[in-house]
Amino acid sequence: MRQMERYFPILEWGRTYGRTPFTNDLIAAVIVTIMLIPQSLAYAMLAGLPAEVGLYASMLPLIAYALFGTSRTLAVGPVAVVSLMTATAVGKIAAEGSSDYLAAAVLLAFLSGVMLVVMGLLRLGFIANLLSHPVISGFITATGLLIAAGQLKHMLGIDISGHTLPEIIAGLVENAGAFSATTLIIGIAVLSFLYFARLRLKGLLRALGAGPRLADIVTKAGPVLAIAVTIVIAYLLDLGNSGVALVGEIPRGLPAPSLPAFNTDLLIELAGPAFLISLIGFVESVSVAQTLAARRRQRIVPNQELIGLGAANIASSVTSGYPVTGGFARSVVNFDAGAQTPAAGAFTAIGIAVATLFLTPVLFYLPQATLAATIIVAVLSLVDVAAVQRVWRYSKTDFSAMAATILGTLFLGVEAGVMLGVGLSVLLHLYRTSRPHMAVVGQVPGTEHFRNVERHAVVTSPEVLSLRVDESLYFANTRYLEDQVSELVAERPQLQHVILMCSAVNEIDASALESLEAINHRLCDAKITLHLSEVKGPVMDRLKRSDFLEDLTGEVFLSQYEAVEKIAPNGK
Amino acid sequence: MRQMERYFPILEWGRTYGRTPFTNDLIAAVIVTIMLIPQSLAYAMLAGLPAEVGLYASMLPLIAYALFGTSRTLAVGPVAVVSLMTATAVGKIAAEGSSDYLAAAVLLAFLSGVMLVVMGLLRLGFIANLLSHPVISGFITATGLLIAAGQLKHMLGIDISGHTLPEIIAGLVENAGAFSATTLIIGIAVLSFLYFARLRLKGLLRALGAGPRLADIVTKAGPVLAIAVTIVIAYLLDLGNSGVALVGEIPRGLPAPSLPAFNTDLLIELAGPAFLISLIGFVESVSVAQTLAARRRQRIVPNQELIGLGAANIASSVTSGYPVTGGFARSVVNFDAGAQTPAAGAFTAIGIAVATLFLTPVLFYLPQATLAATIIVAVLSLVDVAAVQRVWRYSKTDFSAMAATILGTLFLGVEAGVMLGVGLSVLLHLYRTSRPHMAVVGQVPGTEHFRNVERHAVVTSPEVLSLRVDESLYFANTRYLEDQVSELVAERPQLQHVILMCSAVNEIDASALESLEAINHRLCDAKITLHLSEVKGPVMDRLKRSDFLEDLTGEVFLSQYEAVEKIAPNGK
Repeated sequence: MRQMERYFPILEWGRTYGRTPFTNDLIAAVIVTIMLIPQSLAYAMLAGLPAEVGLYASMLPLIAYALFGTSRTLAVGPVAVVSLMTATAVGKIAAEGSSDYLAAAVLLAFLSGVMLVVMGLLRLGFIANLLSHPVISGFITATGLLIAAGQLKHMLGIDISGHTLPEIIAGLVENAGAFSATTLIIGIAVLSFLYFARLRLKGLLRALGAGPRLADIVTKAGPVLAIAVTIVIAYLLDLGNSGVALVGEIPRGLPAPSLPAFNTDLLIELAGPAFLISLIGFVESVSVAQTLAARRRQRIVPNQELIGLGAANIASSVTSGYPVTGGFARSVVNFDAGAQTPAAGAFTAIGIAVATLFLTPVLFYLPQATLAATIIVAVLSLVDVAAVQRVWRYSKTDFSAMAATILGTLFLGVEAGVMLGVGLSVLLHLYRTSRPHMAVVGQVPGTEHFRNVERHAVVTSPEVLSLRVDESLYFANTRYLEDQVSELVAERPQLQHVILMCSAVNEIDASALESLEAINHRLCDAKITLHLSEVKGPVMDRLKRSDFLEDLTGEVFLSQYEAVEKIAPNGK
Repeated sequence: MRQMERYFPILEWGRTYGRTPFTNDLIAAVIVTIMLIPQSLAYAMLAGLPAEVGLYASMLPLIAYALFGTSRTLAVGPVAVVSLMTATAVGKIAAEGSSDYLAAAVLLAFLSGVMLVVMGLLRLGFIANLLSHPVISGFITATGLLIAAGQLKHMLGIDISGHTLPEIIAGLVENAGAFSATTLIIGIAVLSFLYFARLRLKGLLRALGAGPRLADIVTKAGPVLAIAVTIVIAYLLDLGNSGVALVGEIPRGLPAPSLPAFNTDLLIELAGPAFLISLIGFVESVSVAQTLAARRRQRIVPNQELIGLGAANIASSVTSGYPVTGGFARSVVNFDAGAQTPAAGAFTAIGIAVATLFLTPVLFYLPQATLAATIIVAVLSLVDVAAVQRVWRYSKTDFSAMAATILGTLFLGVEAGVMLGVGLSVLLHLYRTSRPHMAVVGQVPGTEHFRNVERHAVVTSPEVLSLRVDESLYFANTRYLEDQVSELVAERPQLQHVILMCSAVNEIDASALESLEAINHRLCDAKITLHLSEVKGPVMDRLKRSDFLEDLTGEVFLSQYEAVEKIAPNGK
């Protein structure tokens, strides 16, 4: 039963589900539904997909997450960053608007879902650690800028393609002449209203006597209001015939469940992007979930979250949706609106289904520029210049990884940006750890203690070199040990014994073992004996599984004092 | 002057160069030249290049290395592994035998040379640490098998292509019917003779009264003998007209210096392979150089080695050669033959130049099967099954990286194999370090000491949680800290204070800082105060560059005792 509960968290909270949480979840679901309708349409447009795909991705995935996810309040669905990553990945394979494009997006969700579930079952959540905070933060900022720039085409009513800043700018410059004035007016009006709503409306409503909760809800409903008003205007003024691009026909009804169309070449081509989307989506989602869970002293289980998000993506793909993950703004709204259990997500799914059945004829008249303005406002809040400054001030190393991610994302594209950032941070980490701390030590006169010769007045002998290694030895730092020993030996013509003091060595991996063997052989060739001292128990046990201890020219001593006493009793 | 000597090691050994080292170097050069002629022809064939390219790669590169390299005895030139990697990289771009193929190989040497020099000047030698010993060892073993399998086509006299084991096997099976019996007989005869020379000849010569040095030299000259004999046979029996593939026309004369043909697309396509070739070549070469240097208590400088090998590759490319590096067998022969300075390399270059000028007409009749047999004998000695067993016994983690490298190399190709191995070992390393050791601690009654609650009888309070972190905090392990704190807090409903004891934390990177901030915020939301204790000086200095200390809900205490005394004087 405990095992079942681990994989189906619903068994835990479902047992005590009653009237109070039901009411709270229902209220939250209504509010989130109102917020999610414009978001799902907008992010589908950002992903280059028909509007209904955004709605489809906002139904079954929420129910799947409610069954498998561990966060009580995470709101799953289409999000901006993942939508851009989808557009980039799928845009390389098929032309926007083609049926191949849609099929690839659906397959991408499926692949990403399977990868997430597999990572969850194998407990590989730690892979997300590859993405350091500066890399994630830089990536989100760069993506926000890139998305905002990309939406300018919808604001201007022109048609350009491209997923990097130079491509977008070149496209804008080239086609700017063909812009539609009406479209631009709508876009700017909506943009201004949304910024007003975000920055001033709440204060204004409070000043007018509205309660804090009402003021908050009205403010959050700003995009819905903008959509309603522009739909009415577009309908009354027949803007569709004045060069304003509208959302147009959305198929009424729910998606029929079906498996995505498989194709080996396509699977191979999408594997890399699917992996990156899975990682980024997971990291973003877990961080939101953890923040919210902490407020109520609840816990989320990262490896089970992988399964929950994976199930949501598979659910998305079997209902013709595209990749989804937990969204920040939406989850906060869900939490603030009082959601208590994942059932709120399931109720939201029902809300979206109702909207898909009855609202789609109305959405025909929705100007794309309205959606573009919604997206711009949402993504510019992701741009965090202060974070860049903070990292710059805190650590130049971390800043360089962040800068590489930002520049890589803007100029080479989202995938290259992430990989550049990850590659650089791993390299920088290896660089930092590639020089294990070590010290030549000597005996403190009259004691059994050994200390760094550079810091203490200690006794040493020209025939004996005692080297204390202060870190575990593994592939990234073991060559440095070889170099250091070579150097120290080359400086000491009279040398006859080297003692490696291993008191701080917790691990010796196979690379380090090879290095120790090489050091032993090289010292042997130079007629120098190698000894070890103070080797920890588990390290010794492992060394016994190799031939090293038999080949060792010298001995393994329990203490450094014992070693020096035995080797050089006079000249220590 | 010290600076000049660092970049031009010749200034150091050149000053004291006299009659004795000259004589010794000359003798060694004659022996290495004899060994290098068949090797350079064979490895050029392995790389899919005309025979003369192997000779060209054995002249100027040796002189360039003599000027810039730090090893006194390393013998640079074409080697088996790099030749296969060249064939794989260039084979994707052009058809074997075409002028594009040759141009790409020359450009590859240039690119690799520039990369090595740049890495050397920027002191990026540590990048080679990415290649752990098990990955390198697995890669060399797999490459050896792959090369041997690939040479079977020359032994059988059939024409197949492919650079992975399945491709090679499929090609052999398909074309086996077209084999040339005469070719096979020559191949098997040479193979048998070479194995006899390697395993028995030395003992036989010694038994017949030859001195150890003479016996050794005659044994090493086995391939030359095989070549001479098969040339004579091929000439006398006119084997070229009996379906036996011969080396054929080799242009007489030295290569005219020229820059490689540049081409942006080609540069981009070759950049990845050039980087891998640089890394593998460097790691192999440095390990040979270090082993030999140690025997005479000399030192090699890894970052200067990068420059030396880089110069050698650039020298190769401007004389129509292909990528080179330090070879193991050849360097050992050079060392054993008494070479004292890199001048031996320069003399070898002159020897190869003389051979190119005068021997090429004779080499016309050399059967390719003879070269194939030479290659097979050389590369099968690279296959180290014992190393695989050793790693299996020593560490299953290291073994999995090794197995991935071997299988990846055999079945997906050399580049995929290396990248798979490197990727897996970095991931496994991150996994190992992704869980920093930490312990909940309590006060040892009557003392100021704090110890792990699981191991000692200590006093704790339900309102205070003291957590000792035993490792530096950085991106790979910081999320685990977040998870652990969440979990510990969720278990303790009465909790009011968390104290992180940082006595063993040497570094807090930007990711860890973000995590501490998140922990602080989350605890604050849950009405719990976060404190730190025993923060080291440099860590504290860095934290002061951020806003963390201002946002911290609690305090930073000099000692854990002070913290507990102040926070919970009664209920500690």
